[in-house]
Amino acid sequence: MELFFSRDIDGSVCRLDADESAHCVKVLRHREGDDIHVIDGEGTLYTCRILSASPKEVEAQVTGVERDWGAHPYRLRMAVCPTKNSDRYEWFAEKATEFGLDVITPVIGDHSERKVFKTDRLKRILLSASKQSLKGAVPQVDEPLPLRDLIKSHSDSSCLKLICCCYEGEEKRVSIEEALKAFEKPVYEHGKGWHYSEEMATAGIPEIVILIGPEGDFSREEVELAVECGFRPVHLGPSRLRTETAALAAVAAVYFHYCGEKGI
Amino acid sequence: MELFFSRDIDGSVCRLDADESAHCVKVLRHREGDDIHVIDGEGTLYTCRILSASPKEVEAQVTGVERDWGAHPYRLRMAVCPTKNSDRYEWFAEKATEFGLDVITPVIGDHSERKVFKTDRLKRILLSASKQSLKGAVPQVDEPLPLRDLIKSHSDSSCLKLICCCYEGEEKRVSIEEALKAFEKPVYEHGKGWHYSEEMATAGIPEIVILIGPEGDFSREEVELAVECGFRPVHLGPSRLRTETAALAAVAAVYFHYCGEKGI
Repeated sequence: MELFFSRDIDGSVCRLDADESAHCVKVLRHREGDDIHVIDGEGTLYTCRILSASPKEVEAQVTGVERDWGAHPYRLRMAVCPTKNSDRYEWFAEKATEFGLDVITPVIGDHSERKVFKTDRLKRILLSASKQSLKGAVPQVDEPLPLRDLIKSHSDSSCLKLICCCYEGEEKRVSIEEALKAFEKPVYEHGKGWHYSEEMATAGIPEIVILIGPEGDFSREEVELAVECGFRPVHLGPSRLRTETAALAAVAAVYFHYCGEKGI
Repeated sequence: MELFFSRDIDGSVCRLDADESAHCVKVLRHREGDDIHVIDGEGTLYTCRILSASPKEVEAQVTGVERDWGAHPYRLRMAVCPTKNSDRYEWFAEKATEFGLDVITPVIGDHSERKVFKTDRLKRILLSASKQSLKGAVPQVDEPLPLRDLIKSHSDSSCLKLICCCYEGEEKRVSIEEALKAFEKPVYEHGKGWHYSEEMATAGIPEIVILIGPEGDFSREEVELAVECGFRPVHLGPSRLRTETAALAAVAAVYFHYCGEKGI
């Protein structure tokens, strides 16, 4: 299934930008009257019939709308310190998108070797990963910010706040699954989609924020600040995982916790 | 912690090959009398004191031996069809090594676009990933073989046999966690290590084989043959995962199932 991306969709007409139009007309040779599928990156899939197939701008009639297309039953923000080697961060971001997450926030910690991080390339990677894994929503990529600012900005949030760290602080670490179990699961019923208990329904979709440190781990002060702000220290098991692997392990743990029992 | 690799270790003396010796003496500038750590790739960590620090051959006295160093409480073989792009397979292999697995078998299926696969580069990647993630055992890499041969060769095996496929066959798929739950877990007690119930102890460490198909998935005939040979069809949840991501998701599911509750 070939997906196109457009931000220029009103109720009835969709326009592709120059790049997408060229790909649609020159590469895939679509013509007037062809049906194409377009995502808006916000979670909606549009089925459209091409009205005019110019390689500069394809205009198409919206014939079908599917909201929350390829959505997951949780809201996950991964706040991950940039890796020394950007490829590894991009790899994490691509794979995390396949599993399903909502926001990636590069955060700069006390032990971060890389203090500068460009997000443009990452955004392109996430768009193509979202198309490839058939998701209507493209994860948001924040501009990098200091880890302490991110921690403090969540101090009043009631979401599930986890910090993956390699050593015990004042508060003993639990496994990430144990921390996730504290959250109630929505239930999937085939054909009916996701159900939440009344409690969940009022609480809305479960929101989770997970912090992953740099190669040198978090500083003790960072972990203490996080704990003060309501983050729970968790571990990812006995293996020594690289930053990007630990970040993906956390995404996979959340994914399996909420989606593991659902068929395809 | 810097690790060296050697296959030339008798009870008391360890020798490093030319590459490792050069790295030890020229790069890390180790000298006679320095203590170094050496893995044999079979699961044992040796602490050694350097007797002679030639950049061509380092000879060292074994002063300490630790078996099953960085070991995991299961035996996992991943039989994964090569990806079109070898980098993606190598990426899977590196990450899977960080989590922990024992054997990677490239298998060629009916829908495999890539029928030839070189394993030399992969073996080097697994050695460095094992060192980096502090594991004494380096996963074994088999030469590629036809998927059907691998399936048939396991028909009499009593291990947990799973095939990750994208469609329902005769037998309904279950989630990989549900399939893993069928297997009894060993229990980890801090300071005491892993315990198995009597049943497990006699059965030994749990053995698991997981099949992952190529970009075009398995053929229906392959799935049917696998089911005949005792493989259970499983799914990895609702997301559409690339071959290498699906393979890593399966490794992560096994890792969390057996190790998730253990601290570092």
